[in-house]
Amino acid sequence: MPSYTAPTKDMQFVLHDVLGASTQDIPGYEEMDRDFTGAVLEEAGKLAQEVLHPLNVVGDTQGCKLENGIVRTPDGFKEAFDQVRDGGWTALDCDTQYGGQGLPYLMQTGVGEILSSANMAFNMYQGLTHGAYSAIHAHGTDAQKAKWLPKMVTCEWTGTMNLTEPHCGTDLGLMRTKAVPQEDGSYRITGQKIFISAGDHDMSDNIVHLVLAKIQGAPEGIKGVSLFIVPKVLVDDDGNLGARNGVSVGKIEEKMGIHGNSTCVMNYDEAEGYLLGDAHKGMRAMFTMMNEARLGVGLQGYAQAEIAYQNARAYALDRLQGRDVTGTKNPDGPADPLIVHPDIRRNLMDQKSFVEGARAFVFWGAMMIDRAHRNADEDADGLISLLTPIIKGFLTDKGFEYATAAQQVYGGHGYIEEWGMSQFARDARIAMIYEGANGVQALDLVGRKLAQDGGKHVMAFFDMVKSFCKENAEDETLKAGFLEPLKAASKDLQSAAMYFMQSGMKNPNAALAGSYDFMTMFGHVALGLMWAKMAKTAGGMLGDDGADRDFLEAKIATGRYYMARQLPATGMHLSRIQSGPETVMELEPTAF
Amino acid sequence: MPSYTAPTKDMQFVLHDVLGASTQDIPGYEEMDRDFTGAVLEEAGKLAQEVLHPLNVVGDTQGCKLENGIVRTPDGFKEAFDQVRDGGWTALDCDTQYGGQGLPYLMQTGVGEILSSANMAFNMYQGLTHGAYSAIHAHGTDAQKAKWLPKMVTCEWTGTMNLTEPHCGTDLGLMRTKAVPQEDGSYRITGQKIFISAGDHDMSDNIVHLVLAKIQGAPEGIKGVSLFIVPKVLVDDDGNLGARNGVSVGKIEEKMGIHGNSTCVMNYDEAEGYLLGDAHKGMRAMFTMMNEARLGVGLQGYAQAEIAYQNARAYALDRLQGRDVTGTKNPDGPADPLIVHPDIRRNLMDQKSFVEGARAFVFWGAMMIDRAHRNADEDADGLISLLTPIIKGFLTDKGFEYATAAQQVYGGHGYIEEWGMSQFARDARIAMIYEGANGVQALDLVGRKLAQDGGKHVMAFFDMVKSFCKENAEDETLKAGFLEPLKAASKDLQSAAMYFMQSGMKNPNAALAGSYDFMTMFGHVALGLMWAKMAKTAGGMLGDDGADRDFLEAKIATGRYYMARQLPATGMHLSRIQSGPETVMELEPTAF
Repeated sequence: MPSYTAPTKDMQFVLHDVLGASTQDIPGYEEMDRDFTGAVLEEAGKLAQEVLHPLNVVGDTQGCKLENGIVRTPDGFKEAFDQVRDGGWTALDCDTQYGGQGLPYLMQTGVGEILSSANMAFNMYQGLTHGAYSAIHAHGTDAQKAKWLPKMVTCEWTGTMNLTEPHCGTDLGLMRTKAVPQEDGSYRITGQKIFISAGDHDMSDNIVHLVLAKIQGAPEGIKGVSLFIVPKVLVDDDGNLGARNGVSVGKIEEKMGIHGNSTCVMNYDEAEGYLLGDAHKGMRAMFTMMNEARLGVGLQGYAQAEIAYQNARAYALDRLQGRDVTGTKNPDGPADPLIVHPDIRRNLMDQKSFVEGARAFVFWGAMMIDRAHRNADEDADGLISLLTPIIKGFLTDKGFEYATAAQQVYGGHGYIEEWGMSQFARDARIAMIYEGANGVQALDLVGRKLAQDGGKHVMAFFDMVKSFCKENAEDETLKAGFLEPLKAASKDLQSAAMYFMQSGMKNPNAALAGSYDFMTMFGHVALGLMWAKMAKTAGGMLGDDGADRDFLEAKIATGRYYMARQLPATGMHLSRIQSGPETVMELEPTAF
Repeated sequence: MPSYTAPTKDMQFVLHDVLGASTQDIPGYEEMDRDFTGAVLEEAGKLAQEVLHPLNVVGDTQGCKLENGIVRTPDGFKEAFDQVRDGGWTALDCDTQYGGQGLPYLMQTGVGEILSSANMAFNMYQGLTHGAYSAIHAHGTDAQKAKWLPKMVTCEWTGTMNLTEPHCGTDLGLMRTKAVPQEDGSYRITGQKIFISAGDHDMSDNIVHLVLAKIQGAPEGIKGVSLFIVPKVLVDDDGNLGARNGVSVGKIEEKMGIHGNSTCVMNYDEAEGYLLGDAHKGMRAMFTMMNEARLGVGLQGYAQAEIAYQNARAYALDRLQGRDVTGTKNPDGPADPLIVHPDIRRNLMDQKSFVEGARAFVFWGAMMIDRAHRNADEDADGLISLLTPIIKGFLTDKGFEYATAAQQVYGGHGYIEEWGMSQFARDARIAMIYEGANGVQALDLVGRKLAQDGGKHVMAFFDMVKSFCKENAEDETLKAGFLEPLKAASKDLQSAAMYFMQSGMKNPNAALAGSYDFMTMFGHVALGLMWAKMAKTAGGMLGDDGADRDFLEAKIATGRYYMARQLPATGMHLSRIQSGPETVMELEPTAF
């Protein structure tokens, strides 16, 4: 059976030593001192280890079942959900006006990693609720907010997001779900939505569906889409639950993973719904919280790699197989532990250097989101908008890749379900697909974000790397294996951006055919920057009284691995991009 | 539901136009003319499409069940196995002396791809039998061969390979299964074996287990391991089935994929067994057929990528989503097909260029095996021994990667089981693990094969690339995008080999820490060479009367994609290797 321990020490290092959270000039951050975040993370870790993680395999094995129109969650989920609710874990960064705790999104992100590592499928029930909460909070009327939010903050009522239909996912302009206005100002919603995570279940009194639909007579395409609140159970003006609405579950999908989460086909049959935000501006409303939602999915990617890594490491330290070619390490045993073998280490270092770099990237991104929201900082908003598709796309690609690599450490034991390694890979796989498939993230990055505000934000990113390298040119730690690789990788990335600008003007396919490579190399540069920051911090702390030298030296060594063994990927991606769009576009469709 | 069509046209192109099979100076190849192989492949395709592929999802969904000590295969498997047997498909390359058809291994390989694409889990029952057949054929006494082989050739009796035990997989020297000699010359075998594919089932009258065990008093470690024939049902001297042997199924493993194949824990309790080959030489006997077995697993890797690609292509041509940014391609429809989007094409081209290159590599490798066996050609044997870990490791890594990439084309539909794309990825995953995990392949390549016979075989490979480039320096097709990338990639590979020679002498970890990168870059160079050969062939045929220009031009374009977009990976791998072992080996085990 797999195990999980919340990596609170690594988290605290990022939060305080690297990011200096409590010293940041962001409202609310003054509370975020080391003791406070430490206590919160420790408590979340306890919940994760004692309650959520033991249910991870249960959820995978039992899945959700549709019985007489009602979805039954796996054994123990309901009780665990009560504990999460009672512990206040659903309300961390919610508005205090509606019962939330008003903590920074950064705090929510740290906790989110822990809960997501421990049980991704389970944590999605509250994650989806949080997304729906954010949409209502941003676009609802005061009356709507007062009616829906307090119960959603506590997850007494959970939420969902309904976008996809059988014939359209990415291209939502093709949507067919209809909304017919009623005399009382409400709408009747009719249509079918698919792939609705947490679409139905038995863990809350009500479910607040946010549904995209077209109002009769709306403009064609994506500009005619509106967003509606459609509750499972109707709620009167005093907040009492009334009759069932015209919402039903068509079926539960059988999936590759996240079996503990109910992925439903939802049928809306003249269901009563209430317009959220402006008519025909549904996409805008839905996308208000997109940066957060996509950062949350990127987090899922590395969170699965983290738990997979923890277990691969444990197995590599424990399993005796073969001998160290440079000299036996376990002479009294029948063989040496796996970890003596260079290729096992190579694999583990790939995982470890990715996960720790990704954590720093996501925490730093969460701080940008806080800065954008709490300080109304447009530069921070622009920067995180640029980086969001990279956080989502790169971290979920790599998260899956390394969950799979962790599985490999187990040999045949990794392939059988008993050891739990297969589940981490199968669960991680979805994060590459939902909330915008990763190819769409690459398109968003290259087709939209790069040129946004005249390219200001990508220039800001390059400047950030450049300034960092300049300011730390004499840093002893960074001189040894950090600055040169970072500069080289950043230069490759700039060359790629330059290629897009020059060639993409003539032929947009020149940029689009290289979009995926660009997203990936950007991810490497971002993680390279994070590693340089972490190494600098760790190097600076080595001389402190009582410094935890083993921990700090391991950070630096792990960072050096990333620079030496991962950053060279940028050259390859640049070559691919510069090879041009011709080989990608040459074949006639019928010749595939 | 997914579909499958045997790619016989592509196969014939490789067999005849590229490899010139029937003109090769190899006994038995004179029969392999275009009509003959075409007829065999078409028939195999029919069987695959009509019988085996429809059972692929059935096998995945139902799995195998252990009922009262007997394993039940999924509905329809038994009848399908009868058809495979009756059609003579199990006997293709078996010895005519024992009822086989005596065809080249190359023919078997072509058919194997088709059957494996159609239903990997199903095809393993005969694949394992073939492995056991080969071991008995190579090491059995005449009496053993006469007794066991005829029924194994027809799969009336199937076979298994029993190596792994709970505490040892790669390191078989730790084995505990014991063999106690009896007065009649037989042995009593006692122990537990795990991960035994096709370990038990209801599709044959008997199962011939090949079991590694240690004879009482044998030398310690791997040098004390012997190989035994241990039938499920005892067979008398006249070939009649008698009593059940002391062999039972402990349980069936729940796995990530290949559910249609019964992966068993096998318990041997004083089971009667017969020594196969010499005492204490079991590993040598087991590894006689290793090149074939590993090539067969490499084949599984690209065969799953092939069927996944076929379905991704169909979906990309059919699914309407978004518009071509350079101008609508489907003005009368609500949207353009997915295939207009550059990143979808990039993904499909990755898959297509890999699968076709892999097929050429494996077919060419199968020809080397025939040359080694049928012509007793030691150079061919040395070369294929060198390339075997690459065929196994690289093709299964990439096979899984591209089966996963094919899944991505489907968006959310790729994650739900209904569309079948998840199964291709889940099934493909095992090929990276069994028959020697891919890290072990890399170790075999760098630690053993590179230096074998004084490095003669790797030099032969480099010479082959060099000669090819020299001889074709003026080829018009190759001048445009083939020769330069191939030379550059081959140079990178040689630099890596040189680095290993120079640094590995002082520190073996310098080579071992780069072994996986070396295997991967070697794979790229090999596929690059195959693509150059295919492009040259296609280019040469373009001027022929009645040439299928669309087909040939697509081959050249696909090859050019591989050279432009895949070969640059060698530079990255070389950088990683040359960064040295320090970052890989630096951390203390406790610091992971």
